[in-house]
Amino acid sequence: MNAPELRTDDRPVLGSDLHLELRGTRLRAGLVEALREAVRGGRLAAGTRLPSSRSLAADLGTARNTVADAYAELVAEGWLTARQGSGTRVARRADPGDRPHRPLASLPAPAAPSHNLVTGAPDLASFPRADWLRAYRRALTAAPDEAFGYGDPRGRAELRAALAEYLARARGVHARPERIVVCAGFAYGLTLLARALRERGVRDAAVEPYGLELHAGILAGAGLGTPVLPTDGRGTDVGALGDLADCGAALMTAAHQFPLGGALPPDRRTAVVDWARASGGVVLEDDYDGEFRYDGKSVGALQGLDPERVVYLGTASKSLAPGLRLAWMVLPEELVDGVVARGSVHGAPSAPDQLAFAEFLGSGAYDRHVRAMRLRYRRRRDQLVAAVAAHAPATRVGGIAAGLHAVLTLPPGTEETTLRTAARHGLAVEGLSPYRRPTAPPPPAGLVVGYATPSDSAWPGALEALCRVLPS
Amino acid sequence: MNAPELRTDDRPVLGSDLHLELRGTRLRAGLVEALREAVRGGRLAAGTRLPSSRSLAADLGTARNTVADAYAELVAEGWLTARQGSGTRVARRADPGDRPHRPLASLPAPAAPSHNLVTGAPDLASFPRADWLRAYRRALTAAPDEAFGYGDPRGRAELRAALAEYLARARGVHARPERIVVCAGFAYGLTLLARALRERGVRDAAVEPYGLELHAGILAGAGLGTPVLPTDGRGTDVGALGDLADCGAALMTAAHQFPLGGALPPDRRTAVVDWARASGGVVLEDDYDGEFRYDGKSVGALQGLDPERVVYLGTASKSLAPGLRLAWMVLPEELVDGVVARGSVHGAPSAPDQLAFAEFLGSGAYDRHVRAMRLRYRRRRDQLVAAVAAHAPATRVGGIAAGLHAVLTLPPGTEETTLRTAARHGLAVEGLSPYRRPTAPPPPAGLVVGYATPSDSAWPGALEALCRVLPS
Repeated sequence: MNAPELRTDDRPVLGSDLHLELRGTRLRAGLVEALREAVRGGRLAAGTRLPSSRSLAADLGTARNTVADAYAELVAEGWLTARQGSGTRVARRADPGDRPHRPLASLPAPAAPSHNLVTGAPDLASFPRADWLRAYRRALTAAPDEAFGYGDPRGRAELRAALAEYLARARGVHARPERIVVCAGFAYGLTLLARALRERGVRDAAVEPYGLELHAGILAGAGLGTPVLPTDGRGTDVGALGDLADCGAALMTAAHQFPLGGALPPDRRTAVVDWARASGGVVLEDDYDGEFRYDGKSVGALQGLDPERVVYLGTASKSLAPGLRLAWMVLPEELVDGVVARGSVHGAPSAPDQLAFAEFLGSGAYDRHVRAMRLRYRRRRDQLVAAVAAHAPATRVGGIAAGLHAVLTLPPGTEETTLRTAARHGLAVEGLSPYRRPTAPPPPAGLVVGYATPSDSAWPGALEALCRVLPS
Repeated sequence: MNAPELRTDDRPVLGSDLHLELRGTRLRAGLVEALREAVRGGRLAAGTRLPSSRSLAADLGTARNTVADAYAELVAEGWLTARQGSGTRVARRADPGDRPHRPLASLPAPAAPSHNLVTGAPDLASFPRADWLRAYRRALTAAPDEAFGYGDPRGRAELRAALAEYLARARGVHARPERIVVCAGFAYGLTLLARALRERGVRDAAVEPYGLELHAGILAGAGLGTPVLPTDGRGTDVGALGDLADCGAALMTAAHQFPLGGALPPDRRTAVVDWARASGGVVLEDDYDGEFRYDGKSVGALQGLDPERVVYLGTASKSLAPGLRLAWMVLPEELVDGVVARGSVHGAPSAPDQLAFAEFLGSGAYDRHVRAMRLRYRRRRDQLVAAVAAHAPATRVGGIAAGLHAVLTLPPGTEETTLRTAARHGLAVEGLSPYRRPTAPPPPAGLVVGYATPSDSAWPGALEALCRVLPS
């Protein structure tokens, strides 16, 4: 196979790649018809360079003239173009609707609001591209050949070792590498976990009274019931777990309740672990933003209290970027095999990404990035608190000084009108009420403000827009 | 927050990261106890550098001497070490069994066989690291900020556009970007697809008489029955599909049957699509190694015959590396929503990886790599055929000249003894019989030889070992 010299940005298709089915003896007519059909049907996109007549003739085992004549006919019909030095190409058609291969990227983007305070993502403009690229390059260069093969379903050993060190140090997690499973995002990890619990005979997994519907949906999708815990003035009332006879698990955002923003009080931290010990249940600790606490009162993960009764779930989606699809679980021994059995036929982060993240953690780049973002988000939260106090005295900023979002409590009955005003002012922001789970009491009128979402340059405008729409 | 100047490879932990819970007034004793416990329990690994006494004192709001005294006591007890210029660190303990954070990477690897001809992976030593890294760097540098967020569950538009162009050109696939779903590996894609089919009311998905148990298992795991198609001298007898009343899908390796190695004859290609049209069923086309055909008789994908009745499933696992976890489906319109609904809460390849692969495809690096590997594998297959003819006249190389593996047909009754001999000679290779599905007739005695698996330098030795163990 003699590969011709190709310019990388402008290579012709190969004759063998055209998949022309030529039947019978009327070779030229057959070729014309096959090429016309390939262009019409979109298999050959506009601008595609065809092989030279000499080379296609050789591939087809026919005379060069047969191909040259066929090309000439199609040029005459307008299907192809031929220019000296540029070869024969598929012509651009007048009607773009005829071209099924128009890249999606060229479609007009949906109109975006001017200001975005929807929670869920960190400041994407701050993704540390240069540092990540450095880690990726180092990791890819140093990777053993076997790293490119099918790997351990728990994830790369290098990453699990780096995570064990980091989680112990930064979150007080009791993490052994062999108990860690790397997974492509929190939701994916929760899916594996929910199925493993169901197969172990767990019937119900309790959820907090306010939270993401997606997460309860994942539990339900695995066949688990999702009883909703009650709430009182001190947050989720975990004492009620003892009354749920079929409940074998509880999904908790203990360090920073999502979305309300409180921290589970110390006595309830103890109580939920005691429940798990006494009942044989497990606590699923969703530590989505544990690295971000601004008042100096950082609490370690619940998991440190009892690694055999608490599953720790962490993610790089808030600390780095959701687009990396990197998350991890630290599992009790009894759950490792069940989760791994489920994971092996599913998606997992790519081995180069896992090695890059191990390098990123090990080199200190992750610590540096988290520290920089902590400073930035803390400043934004302080500005939010000050601006609300100055411009909207009827609004209260709730929750602890932590994380990437804050709940603004509005005067009763004003949530919907505030959201409508926001939309009119081009401000995308969410209300609190969609986070209410069935049977939970209605939350106060409120907004969930993702102050981490805008870029640094977009933040002042977004904050100003927010203050404009808050009830005065 | 004033980040101290840190050397990246040797940074101290931060005071706020230690999660020391200090109660009561006996601060020094409390600190000693908390640190001792953190070291004993493994939360602070050997070698970890502690913050300076000044900085930890500031974090804890206590006097510097209190911390310095606590450190001194722990140094005296052997828990910590202190050296001029190196700061205070957690001491290395005598008994390594005490250190739960020993990285897995340092565990001894299981003894590997000397020669590896197990099928499933390409030559991993040939992964084009430099070209991939170049594509990754370009993609990461050019990526818009939004690429780091939660993305389209179908995958990045840039990659779907590049795949549409490539698949049309190289495999004759009728591919529109909006019908493509990028997924983290073939098995993961098949999982999503199987669930979507089951929810649409499909009851059975037929499988070929010989194939990977994993794939039938995925279909069964989604609740589908998996009737086994019969076989005759010309391969899988797809005519039998008409007799399967509940069958709404058929999983086929049409271009290169795995593992037997034949190509579905033209009349059966037509017949299976005709069945799908007449019955409203779908063909799931597993085109795992379609780029690798060495006899010049390349056939395009079945999907080109009817894009509304054939799902095309492709992967970079054979052409590049399984460790990238990159695969794709081209779906009939009626299946797009069902598959996407399932995919959104699951794992997907990271956005940077998807953009890098789009760049890799668009720059021609993928074509160049596939061409180079085609040449290499073709040469290996030729050498295999020649060596078997010369050294093992009782063995026959079956199947078409294509792909990354070949089936060697052995004299009747010799498969098991040959495998035992191979194991004794340090040669890892698989027999044909494990690929037999229930109700399928026993296959001939045979070996499935993954000639793509070794590196170029390991290949001659592996081939020699194979010839030594074949029955003469």
